[in-house]
Amino acid sequence: MELLEICQRAKSVKYEVQKLGTEDKNRALFKVAECLESEAKYILDANSKDYENGLKNGMHQGMLDRLKLDEKRIEAMAEGVRQVAGLEDPIGTVIENFERPNGLKISKVRVPFGVIGIIYESRPNVTADAFSLTFKSGNAVILKGGSDAINSNIAITRVIRDALSSEGINPDAVQLIEDTDRSVTQKFMQMKEYVDVLIPRGSERLIRAVVENSTIPVIETGTGNCHIYVDKDADLKKAIPIIINAKTQRIGVCNAVESLVVHESVKDEFLPLFDKAMKEYNVEIRADKASREILTDSALATDEDFGKEYLDYIISVKTVSDVSEAIDHINKYNTGHSESIITENEETARKFLNEVDAACVYVNASTRFTDGFEFGFGAEIGISTQKLHARGPMGLKELTSYKYEIIGTGQIRG
Amino acid sequence: MELLEICQRAKSVKYEVQKLGTEDKNRALFKVAECLESEAKYILDANSKDYENGLKNGMHQGMLDRLKLDEKRIEAMAEGVRQVAGLEDPIGTVIENFERPNGLKISKVRVPFGVIGIIYESRPNVTADAFSLTFKSGNAVILKGGSDAINSNIAITRVIRDALSSEGINPDAVQLIEDTDRSVTQKFMQMKEYVDVLIPRGSERLIRAVVENSTIPVIETGTGNCHIYVDKDADLKKAIPIIINAKTQRIGVCNAVESLVVHESVKDEFLPLFDKAMKEYNVEIRADKASREILTDSALATDEDFGKEYLDYIISVKTVSDVSEAIDHINKYNTGHSESIITENEETARKFLNEVDAACVYVNASTRFTDGFEFGFGAEIGISTQKLHARGPMGLKELTSYKYEIIGTGQIRG
Repeated sequence: MELLEICQRAKSVKYEVQKLGTEDKNRALFKVAECLESEAKYILDANSKDYENGLKNGMHQGMLDRLKLDEKRIEAMAEGVRQVAGLEDPIGTVIENFERPNGLKISKVRVPFGVIGIIYESRPNVTADAFSLTFKSGNAVILKGGSDAINSNIAITRVIRDALSSEGINPDAVQLIEDTDRSVTQKFMQMKEYVDVLIPRGSERLIRAVVENSTIPVIETGTGNCHIYVDKDADLKKAIPIIINAKTQRIGVCNAVESLVVHESVKDEFLPLFDKAMKEYNVEIRADKASREILTDSALATDEDFGKEYLDYIISVKTVSDVSEAIDHINKYNTGHSESIITENEETARKFLNEVDAACVYVNASTRFTDGFEFGFGAEIGISTQKLHARGPMGLKELTSYKYEIIGTGQIRG
Repeated sequence: MELLEICQRAKSVKYEVQKLGTEDKNRALFKVAECLESEAKYILDANSKDYENGLKNGMHQGMLDRLKLDEKRIEAMAEGVRQVAGLEDPIGTVIENFERPNGLKISKVRVPFGVIGIIYESRPNVTADAFSLTFKSGNAVILKGGSDAINSNIAITRVIRDALSSEGINPDAVQLIEDTDRSVTQKFMQMKEYVDVLIPRGSERLIRAVVENSTIPVIETGTGNCHIYVDKDADLKKAIPIIINAKTQRIGVCNAVESLVVHESVKDEFLPLFDKAMKEYNVEIRADKASREILTDSALATDEDFGKEYLDYIISVKTVSDVSEAIDHINKYNTGHSESIITENEETARKFLNEVDAACVYVNASTRFTDGFEFGFGAEIGISTQKLHARGPMGLKELTSYKYEIIGTGQIRG
């Protein structure tokens, strides 16, 4: 199908999706989950083609891993869809109610965006995931997945669409752009007349390309160059497990810590403990001049190190003379994602919370908690690092807009 | 000053502006208002240069009117600044508070965007207006006004900056891009590293150019192709004054009505009344085939008419056979601004409220109420016609973002 027809269909189906009641949406989601499981063989066959093509084309091992599906991953996909069915429906909630002196009654009501576009890379599980979240929040969705996973995505989308049809729901609620030509993606980003919001999910490169080329409003789900600052009043016993967790629990994620900032007055006591812990977990340290007096076998950190999201077993270290210098350093290099201070001093903690410019600012906790599930949203479409619309973990509510309903009795403006 | 230096200064001052208390901000705003009045002659001299240049360059009368300042307009400008001082400070409000089972205490707190960029045309009063709203909401602002008003804008900005300095506040809280070269505006829209949000104010052409070229997130303040639908259950006595008000109270504004949609079962009774009222106010009617049976001396409406924001004494008429057709027609042609139904039938009204896709949907009231002041926000930076972040009238709250503050006691992720 042509891109234009896909967009027109999405625009015309959005009113139907918007009108669906919570029970209808949930029933459809359970049906989709069931069909994903019963059609597992069909999906796995398609996935094998993608996997073999990937092997043939010399795809990187990490990417092959993300691409590969198996029975267990399909079950997890189905389970994810069921969980979304269990979440509260955000649509129709009255956010605010007020009456004007002229008698106009104004309600601010939560409504779907309409049509959401999602551009992602080669993880086929995003297909089911993105569908369930956009559908439950009353939106129609147009998916544009990576060409490496095209057979898997076609199969998964077909299963979802058939499941919707069997429940009497218009299957155009979810559509996949099957044309893998780059020029089609470019054109998709210009379909402002049809698509209300575009969400890119994937690498920094993908996100940058979308931000630079889209005329549709974009929610940026960005990179995380996250810091932990160990203050002079830190409880050092708390600091070590938090840093180990934030650095090593999962290295390839945006909420992993990439840089330690340490107050000079605790560095003599703290850095040997830190050095020992990092060695134990095979983490390479890149230290500034002052901290290298203790971290003697570390490489010297360059300016480039401080600006880098390693996504690897590497951490940089910066020494500061007070919390203000720590905040300035973080605000210079961070990506607006997650930042943490370790301190027992409430005043210092408050200053850090107020002045650090990031979606999530922590006191005495791991940056790894920046996540829709950990925040209790029950789901997550991504972590926003921009300030427009949504910041931090985005759940169902963040996939909605609002409208004003104004009830009058004949009022005119004077 | 070079664009890059302006952006760097804005980024560095934003933390200072963010930290200002409500009283400091209000004191500064009152001082700015006072100085605008006491420096009126200086501003008017600069404005005369712009006006003379405009005359020389054959500027359109409407634009000359918008450009021209006088004592009274400067007083109104100052009064606007004082009114903003009187508004509630949105910064620091806790939007939500919750605790997770692991003991993490999460607060969602309202914070400024940081740096806001505003691109506008030749109305110099926008300069003071945009400053007061962005400043009160804790943001630094970079202004890029139209080149036709450059002398006025330089003068107004200088007065504001001097007033801030005299109150001990860093004047870089407001900066004007004085270079009127188009290429500078282009570069400004790419300054994503420094500017958090960009708001274009002005013509459709300006807004489109910003949407197409900006890599900074944009809040679109768009055009209004607004409709009023007179239902079969309408109280026709209410309909006429509402249509007169929405069409003629001010023709050049985005919340003026541009199209009448009428139910076929009331057209015989209603259209003669409508025709008479429009004639009285010198409004030209462009009618579809069915309504022309009654509106016999009207031109035939084309498809182009239905898609047009006239901003003039013209209105189009479309006949429909039921509310669903009315909704479909409106959703096809509207710009997501303001739509109104005239009906005494609650069920029909509810359907219209639910299904019309617009920022503001009215029952039995004029579309002219879509306005920050009329909504009781006390101010307005514009009317958003997009669905991301803010929809409809935008006041101080809509010039803010939020951050999550998370307080732990050593929590790590399992």
